[in-house]
Amino acid sequence: MSGHLVSSYDADLNDLRQRILTMGGLVEKMIADVIQALVERNTELAETVIARDHEVNTLEVDIDERCLELLALRQPTGRDLRFITLALKIVTDIERIGDKCSNMAKRARMLNQEPPLKPYIDIPRMAHWVSVMIREALDAFIRGDDQLALKVCKDDGMVDDLNEQVQRELYTYMIEDPSTISRAMRLTYISKSLERIADHATNIAEMVIFMVKGKDIRHTIA
Amino acid sequence: MSGHLVSSYDADLNDLRQRILTMGGLVEKMIADVIQALVERNTELAETVIARDHEVNTLEVDIDERCLELLALRQPTGRDLRFITLALKIVTDIERIGDKCSNMAKRARMLNQEPPLKPYIDIPRMAHWVSVMIREALDAFIRGDDQLALKVCKDDGMVDDLNEQVQRELYTYMIEDPSTISRAMRLTYISKSLERIADHATNIAEMVIFMVKGKDIRHTIA
Repeated sequence: MSGHLVSSYDADLNDLRQRILTMGGLVEKMIADVIQALVERNTELAETVIARDHEVNTLEVDIDERCLELLALRQPTGRDLRFITLALKIVTDIERIGDKCSNMAKRARMLNQEPPLKPYIDIPRMAHWVSVMIREALDAFIRGDDQLALKVCKDDGMVDDLNEQVQRELYTYMIEDPSTISRAMRLTYISKSLERIADHATNIAEMVIFMVKGKDIRHTIA
Repeated sequence: MSGHLVSSYDADLNDLRQRILTMGGLVEKMIADVIQALVERNTELAETVIARDHEVNTLEVDIDERCLELLALRQPTGRDLRFITLALKIVTDIERIGDKCSNMAKRARMLNQEPPLKPYIDIPRMAHWVSVMIREALDAFIRGDDQLALKVCKDDGMVDDLNEQVQRELYTYMIEDPSTISRAMRLTYISKSLERIADHATNIAEMVIFMVKGKDIRHTIA
């Protein structure tokens, strides 16, 4: 194989890494925006999140195609093969994070039409941690860093705890004053969506550990 | 390439199809069992569902490895390449369905220790439709049948509606009698899990349509 081909292969792989990070950055921004739309009651911003879901979807299709091209034309083996096949799986998780952001934004839009139920404290905190988890899961993937991936898996418990706390608090609202139910349920939805996004980040991190270690650690992490 | 090699490649692809169907059959059985464990208050059966999650996880790792081997050794292109890379994505969805079954079984175990809240009617109905969706999504994948896949996407709305109905009913219980809250919340969890399993089946079906049509239909289905 000529030096030219090898370097073009490396360039293709780098390009793939870059696109995955771009896609991750996009959903991170969507999370930040949806929370800002909620806290600042900015419905216009919620609309931009809903619109931006298309970009994430387009990126997924684009990255999938690039992965298939690399597999068909470069016939990678070993480490590169694991990287590319994992990229195929990971973009699916990122795309579903985008879906959840769009759905959260729709709930934020509805919430902004009603009087605020309460100041938001734990939900922005959850959103912060969820964003960190996504960024670290993707960094772990790009660098093949199983220690960082393990940290992501551990951080998931923190988001779960915050979600349970939010859920409990919202149920108290509902029980004490049934007029809060519809708003509380929308906030419940947002909190659960953040928890599910954290699960996607954890799924990515578990797959990274599996890629690095090459054995079944995915299903042994508590 | 010799006739022997070709036929062994076909055998490998058939074996891959068979394993995916086996994995699908396993999670279908888990869904049926978790609902039976709930309806008949059979905690022992719930325990078998929890234990069986390992089998699903092992199958996922096994199928992943076979896909990687096929990619590395057979260097497929075109239709076969799309089939194998989609198999990689699909087993992730099936594995997550298994996780959800195991988590539902844990809730069923807790519910069986308390007096029954109500007869279960809509939850078994949801479970039935969810199982049909999984079976049809995987059949659509194996046969490359985009029409069947489209049916799965449409059926998702029915499961969503049933889930919303169950959610509303359970909230009514909670509001009217706070002593039902913990049980109602566990049932809420089970109903939402079924709805999420239907989403996984829908995700699989959308990817199948994409595979067959080779263009971006995934993100245009309402």
